Amino acid sequence: MKTIGLIVAYDGTPFAGWQRQPDRPTIQGCLEEAVSKINQTPTEVRGASRTDAGVHAEYQIAAFDTERPYDTGRWRIALNATTPPEITVRCAFEAPAGFEPRFESRGKHYRYWLWQNAYLPPFLYHRAAHTRPLDIENMQKAAQYLIGEHDFSSFRAYDCQAKTPVRTITRLDISTPGGPYVFGCHDESALIQIDVEGTAFLKQMVRIIVGTLIEFGLGRNATEMLDVLNGRKRVLAGRTAPADGLTLVRSYSSIDELVRISQ
Amino acid sequence: MKTIGLIVAYDGTPFAGWQRQPDRPTIQGCLEEAVSKINQTPTEVRGASRTDAGVHAEYQIAAFDTERPYDTGRWRIALNATTPPEITVRCAFEAPAGFEPRFESRGKHYRYWLWQNAYLPPFLYHRAAHTRPLDIENMQKAAQYLIGEHDFSSFRAYDCQAKTPVRTITRLDISTPGGPYVFGCHDESALIQIDVEGTAFLKQMVRIIVGTLIEFGLGRNATEMLDVLNGRKRVLAGRTAPADGLTLVRSYSSIDELVRISQ
Repeated sequence: MKTIGLIVAYDGTPFAGWQRQPDRPTIQGCLEEAVSKINQTPTEVRGASRTDAGVHAEYQIAAFDTERPYDTGRWRIALNATTPPEITVRCAFEAPAGFEPRFESRGKHYRYWLWQNAYLPPFLYHRAAHTRPLDIENMQKAAQYLIGEHDFSSFRAYDCQAKTPVRTITRLDISTPGGPYVFGCHDESALIQIDVEGTAFLKQMVRIIVGTLIEFGLGRNATEMLDVLNGRKRVLAGRTAPADGLTLVRSYSSIDELVRISQ
Repeated sequence: MKTIGLIVAYDGTPFAGWQRQPDRPTIQGCLEEAVSKINQTPTEVRGASRTDAGVHAEYQIAAFDTERPYDTGRWRIALNATTPPEITVRCAFEAPAGFEPRFESRGKHYRYWLWQNAYLPPFLYHRAAHTRPLDIENMQKAAQYLIGEHDFSSFRAYDCQAKTPVRTITRLDISTPGGPYVFGCHDESALIQIDVEGTAFLKQMVRIIVGTLIEFGLGRNATEMLDVLNGRKRVLAGRTAPADGLTLVRSYSSIDELVRISQ
């Protein structure tokens, strides 16, 4: 028995999220179907992050067990030929036997895009959330209160099952990366990028943080973020921002040194 | 009777092109359905460019006639509320009575994206064509032969109906615009951008030019571009590049000074 690890990227638009569901297309479901077909036996694919419906990923970690003697390059090619084009296996590698991506996670980097002009370029449709113009400096001030280890009860979905609401955010940057070449003739400061890194996240935590930061971008006093955090009630935070602006940029893991991505 | 002009952007992915078809969704068809509904009478929408299935646009010009006394701002809002989210009306303006966008066209700017790495980021799925690594300098040398007024018979679709194959290309730039922020951790030189401007184009001309430039990127001698051009036969040029890498960035027109786009 071998365990094969995968680095997977996907456009989340057509999927009902990562997690397998009986009647809807999911990323885990598509990968399991492809692996099971090649493996010629029903095979579970385990993932590091259960991304929501519509969320994208550049670097999700997955793993499955197999008796086949195929080398990792063959797995990569066979899987890319079998999965839908919205899913790309960037790399396959030999992982320690029984490797569990969720338990071996060492941190995650999420990125959220907001577009603050009247006109959303079609290029960003399903990639960015559309907002009114925001005060970025005020958002940056409010964001500082969230960095570090805190009880994030205000920033978890009502049905979040995690045993503890304590999490650590190591980075929360709000920037306007521009991109006049990429976005054509449009105002390059219209794109706002929010980078969030931490060891682990609660259910919908990043989207609730973004939805709350939008309120501060619209004028809420930055120090009130402390009240939201300390109040420990979901109702104190902002709305859950739409899923399609969110990308899992990177999932860090104990086996990172085993991964060699060929560009 | 008033004529309303529109500046329209769209994600071409879900459409069978600009031109109305009886049984398939098209951009013209969706706009006509929306205008006719608001106008309460069947209304034709005329466009400047008949983009192919899958081709995107940032700035297509369209027009229709109406007896309604609505102001242009109301038309813009009503149309954006009625068309699918993949179509955005960036601006509505009062055009000269009977304005015909096709006949008033003064030039077009198309952009094509190629991705030359092993791994196509999901973000660029439906936005860029995937190729092997290309020699950009050689492509630039070959491109020089196409600038100016020429008989472009080698670069037109077999069923192209244009009366003359003579067209003028004013710009043909091949660049690597980069974008490390936008494309995350990937090699920023992987994105190749081809900008083509001209007064008018033959059917599939830009896609055939791109498909031919790819052959030069793969090593064909740059001076052979002159043989392709002078041979005046479609078979001498390369394959038609896929539609989804192409965007109509801008359609120029005699009425450009009437257009005020609110960002």
